[in-house]
This record gives sequence, C-alpha cells and structure tokens, in this order.
Amino acid sequence: MAQTAPTALLLSIGSELLLGETVDTNAAWLGRELARLGLDLRGVRQLPDDREVIARAFSSGMAEHDLVLATGGLGPTHDDLTREGLADALGEELIEDGGLAQDLRDRFGGAGRMPVSNLRQAQLITSAKPLDNPIGSAPGWWVEREGRYMALMPGVPAEMQQMWRDHVAPRLERKLGLRPLAVRTVKTFGVGESAVAERLGDLLVAPGHGIDAGIYARDDGVHLRFSTRLDASRLVDPVRRALSALGDDVYGTDAQTLPRLALAALQRAGVATLASLESGTDGALLAILSAHQAAEGEARYQGGALFVDGEPPAAAADAVLRVRLAAQGALGRSRVAVDLAAPGIGFEARMVRIHGSGQQRLRRAAFAALDLVRRAGTIGERRA
Amino acid sequence: MAQTAPTALLLSIGSELLLGETVDTNAAWLGRELARLGLDLRGVRQLPDDREVIARAFSSGMAEHDLVLATGGLGPTHDDLTREGLADALGEELIEDGGLAQDLRDRFGGAGRMPVSNLRQAQLITSAKPLDNPIGSAPGWWVEREGRYMALMPGVPAEMQQMWRDHVAPRLERKLGLRPLAVRTVKTFGVGESAVAERLGDLLVAPGHGIDAGIYARDDGVHLRFSTRLDASRLVDPVRRALSALGDDVYGTDAQTLPRLALAALQRAGVATLASLESGTDGALLAILSAHQAAEGEARYQGGALFVDGEPPAAAADAVLRVRLAAQGALGRSRVAVDLAAPGIGFEARMVRIHGSGQQRLRRAAFAALDLVRRAGTIGERRA
Repeated sequence: MAQTAPTALLLSIGSELLLGETVDTNAAWLGRELARLGLDLRGVRQLPDDREVIARAFSSGMAEHDLVLATGGLGPTHDDLTREGLADALGEELIEDGGLAQDLRDRFGGAGRMPVSNLRQAQLITSAKPLDNPIGSAPGWWVEREGRYMALMPGVPAEMQQMWRDHVAPRLERKLGLRPLAVRTVKTFGVGESAVAERLGDLLVAPGHGIDAGIYARDDGVHLRFSTRLDASRLVDPVRRALSALGDDVYGTDAQTLPRLALAALQRAGVATLASLESGTDGALLAILSAHQAAEGEARYQGGALFVDGEPPAAAADAVLRVRLAAQGALGRSRVAVDLAAPGIGFEARMVRIHGSGQQRLRRAAFAALDLVRRAGTIGERRA
Repeated sequence: MAQTAPTALLLSIGSELLLGETVDTNAAWLGRELARLGLDLRGVRQLPDDREVIARAFSSGMAEHDLVLATGGLGPTHDDLTREGLADALGEELIEDGGLAQDLRDRFGGAGRMPVSNLRQAQLITSAKPLDNPIGSAPGWWVEREGRYMALMPGVPAEMQQMWRDHVAPRLERKLGLRPLAVRTVKTFGVGESAVAERLGDLLVAPGHGIDAGIYARDDGVHLRFSTRLDASRLVDPVRRALSALGDDVYGTDAQTLPRLALAALQRAGVATLASLESGTDGALLAILSAHQAAEGEARYQGGALFVDGEPPAAAADAVLRVRLAAQGALGRSRVAVDLAAPGIGFEARMVRIHGSGQQRLRRAAFAALDLVRRAGTIGERRA
C-alpha cells in the first residue's frame, strides 16, 4: 500500500465454508466496501465453528488491526459460536438481554411460537451494543475496546449488507475519520492478461507517487485498476497513458459495462428494442442483459430465450442477438458463434474463441457477443 | 471433528480478493475436495500480494498443518509473489528452469512471441517439482519438506481444478494413505433453519458416536449433513431419524435435486417435454433447468424464455412452467407467482413467499417453483 490507512481483518465463520458447502461471497462484498471507505483489509480468514479457534482469531486480530469484522455463526443452533468466541477473547460473560429476548419473541409472533434455541441470539456481553437486523432473527454486535473496533454480522448476505449499511459503515466513518480511496478502472476485452501488461510497460510497476496499480482477468475482460489515498486527480495521468497504450481494445472505464455500451451502440444506430436467443450458455446472455440497469440512451432489452434442442423460438424486436456456444475444446478453448440481425447495424455470423470453463466460460461467451456489438457500433460511427 | 485426520490450510493469494474484485470460489471447491479425500481443512486465509505476508503465512501454516495449499499469485506480472513467498519461507533460492522456460516458449508459439515477463513462471526452487498446466501458462509446484506437503496452484478456477485432479489429489492420496469421509445429506424446502433444527431435537447435537452433524440454509432449501470417518453404515440411523422427523418437507437425499425430482414427477404424469417462462428472475429458472444434467426417467427440458416487458412469448412443449417474481417487499420477503400448465399434472396459479435478496432471491424463486411441481407429482401419485 502506498499510504497508511487503518487496517482491518475479516473473519468468515462457519464450518460450511471450509467444507465447501457455501461460497463466501460476503468477503468480496465487504472487501469492496472497506476499500471504498478507505480501510485497508489485510486479510480474510475462514474459520470452523470451533469456540477456541474463533476466540484465538479475535485475540490475534485485535492485537494487529484497528478493526476486526466477523460474519456468520450468529444463528440459533448449537454450532453458532461467534458470540462465545468473542466473549472468551475479551474475558467477558454472556448474559441474556431482556429487550433482545422480547424483540425475538415479537418477531416470531409470540413467546410460544419461537423455537427455544433462538434465545441464544438474545445474549450479549457488557462491551457489546446490539445492532438491529430487520430482516432476520440474528442481531449483530458492535464492540469497542482499547481503541479497537469489532463488529459481528450475520452470514446471510442480505442481512449482513443491510446491517453494514445501516449500522457498521456509518459508525466506522464517524469513529475513524476515514479518507476514501480514489479508484479508476480501465476495461479491455479480447486481449490476455500478460499481453495487456506487456503493452503497458512500466505503467503497472511505477504508476506514479502514491498510486497503486493492479491488473485483473475477469469474465468481462482484463481490467486495470489505479488507486490512491491522495488526491483523485493524480489518477488522470496513468489512466490517460493506459488508454493510449491499449487503443481499441479498451471498451470503457469505471462504471461503463459491455451491456451498457452494446445497448447504447444499438440505440445510436436507430435500434429501439433488443431480444436475445442463445444455446449452450445456460442463459448467461439473458441473465447479463436482464440484470443490467436500463438507462437513457440505450436500446431497451425486451427479453430472451434459451433453447436446448429443436428450432429457436421467434423473437419480436428491432434487433436480435444470437449466441451459440460450442462444447469445450482442447486447452480450455471454446468457440462462440455470434450473429446480430438489426437494421442499420450488424454483422454476419462471426466465430470468436474464448478461454475458461464453468460459469466463467458461459459468461465470457455472452460478453464476447456484447463486445462484438459494441465494436460494430464504433466502426459504424467511424464510417458515418 | 469426531476423528483425527491430517489437517490442511489453504492460502488464497491476491490483493484482488481483498479488494473484492474477485470472489474466491476456489476455496469452496477445494473445501469439498479435501473433505472427500478425508483431509480436515482447518482454515482458509486470503492474503494480499505482499511477499513478506505470504512468506509468514507459509511458515506458520507448515508449523501447524500437514498440508498447505495455495492458489493464485503464479501469474507473470510483478504482483504475482507466491513463488517468492514460499522460497523465502523455506530459505531457498529461485532459479530459472531450462525445461520450463522452453515449455513456455513453445506454448506461445516461439521465443519472440512470448512476453518476457512470462519467464518468471519458469522459476523453481530445489525442493519443488513443477506441476503441468495444459490450459494456462502458470505451472504449479509440489513441495515436500520434513514430512509436510505444499502445493501451489493457479488462481484461475479451470486451471486449478485440472491441476488438482491430475497431480495434487493423486499425490495426496498416495502419500497420506487417506481414509475418506462418508457423507449423507437430507434436503428440505420451505421450512426455516431453526424450525428444522427444532423438529430434529437431539439429533443435531448428538447424532451418534463418531458422527458429525451440520445444518445449512442454501438456495435450494435447508440441508442436513451427517458425516463420519468410520464406516459409512453408521449414517443409516441418523438419516432415517431425520427423514421421519421431517416428513413431506424432505424432497430428497444426497445427489437428488429439485430439478431432477420435478422433471421426474412430470414424466411419471405423462409429460415428455417442458418449457419455462419467467419474469423478474434474470433467467434463474432456465439457468437451473439448463444446467441440470438430463437423465432417464425425466421430462426433457426444451428451453425457456425470460420476458422483461410486453407479452410473454408462446412456448411449444407438453408442459409450461411459469414464474413471476414480484419486487422485493418488507423484511426481505418476496412473492412468487407460479403456474404449471400441463396435461395429467398441475395446479392453478399459486403464490409462495420467499426470503433473501440478490442472486439468492432469484434462485429461491426458481427452486420454489420446482418444489411445487415436485409436490404436485407426489400428491397426484397418492391420489392414483
């Protein structure tokens, strides 16, 4: 890190994580939030439901970091031991809180209707303030001890996210007087990670004083990320240099996405509505297009179809984007047939190659199609 | 853990993980694999691209565990420091390996076409044997020192998985003489986690000698998991007790899934082909149905459509399953309208409530629809 910031450790608690029953998506979500706030997340540890292991992790985390966050292990069952672990680490005792117990009973619609085990969720230690959880039964904890902060949040992503936004993030901003991290991202598609790095030369290694640079291969292409805790204007120069080195392979920066740019290219070409047709992709293209937040200046996505066998269904829209993903070939390569039928813009059936497997392979096929639409729009404009 | 097994630690390396740019799906995948082999994964640590931090994690991991696995940080760029970290921890020097360097040049189609930075991937230490990576440029490492084992694998999931299956897992089975973990899973839908736990009484806390029990809330319902490193027959009794306590809310065990059971129920009712129509779900239903591995004795899934606005398209199949997910309501609850039009089986439009947000909410809506189809099939058979 180029500057010093308060440091944080995240404990993701639950044996289901270590057994691979659950993917820890909370860690990445909180990682983005902590970076946005200007906290330096120095590590994530997944721990089993083991009281002693949890207690030790809190103890060493508190010794080394300004903030220790934990998710999970706040449920009502016998293997939910996060409360016990933190109590042990702090040498405090768990006591049932009358107010929390009443809240829980109300939540279940009366005392007789609540499983008795849920009362464990009403326990507190003296140093902890409860954090409200309006969409689940597990309250969180906020703890301050000797200038260090700890927050316990539920493992269910929606509950954790709401608690973070309503209670934990505001407290951290207030208590730590945080300086945010300025971030700029340059996004490319169709070029490999090391080829991108090569074209950038020194820019990745020495992006400038107080600036960090990173390069990430993602489903929607290779992204460059520049960040600083100094003034955001310092990022203008490295971004300009990256754009000039990478030319047409850059599709956008920051919040620009391939669905947005493809739909905007279509609209500029006079296309009002788009439908999609796909096979071999498990619906990756329609999932990406329907999850996209529609905005002004874009063709409207009307919906799409996935066909497993037989004839593709007919689609009634100004433009139809077709994607067919072939079975996976040697060396992890797959072929994607892409076709765009539209007035004013388009191309005949094209074949592109993608790399990867699993979900990534399906999503890359969809992004490859959107990148072709985006490029077709750009070329059309240059001709005009 | 009820029995002692060799213990393992996993290091997931890369600042992109801590910044939340990438979700660490490798950890869950390896967690399942390690459990299957009979290794006890005691922790996962996500680490930044920091040579000293990585070296310390290897040192302490080796001191405490039989096996230390690492994924990520084997790329060609300056911030890929896993090789350096392990070399430092072992006090060994990195040396370019002539054979690996030649393999890399061949891979890129000749010396002149390889970015020079890729040569970093040809470095080895004396204790390390290289592991072949046929689908990527980063070779892995296998290291044995003082009865401890270490394996470095790439961070790209497809590359890691292939290297694990071809090289790492076979070596571990041979070297450690592993006894596998027997696992049985009982799956329910439509009942909350604590209600399931309540109905099971003592079974979760004391499932029997040498048996571990866990309960997990997943997109496709609440799962109970019983496991043992003793004889698999010990699991018969707890599974029988769980089935009897939970009755109709159990939809299956082990590899049985809601898509499989719904498609089988349709076929038993004389339905040969199914199509789906959905809105508000980003295509979750068609994604689940098309990712399902079709088998004998099931109706065939023909494909589906997602509509964003306007009239739903017509579907030509024996049966059509329709799902419409409403906007998210208070307390994280959403309403799902489900309708099944089919000869011989079916129900009129039904409304079910689901909990959750984000991807989970979309997938739960789809699974709720499949659970209704599964239940309709069961009821039809009881009547017949």
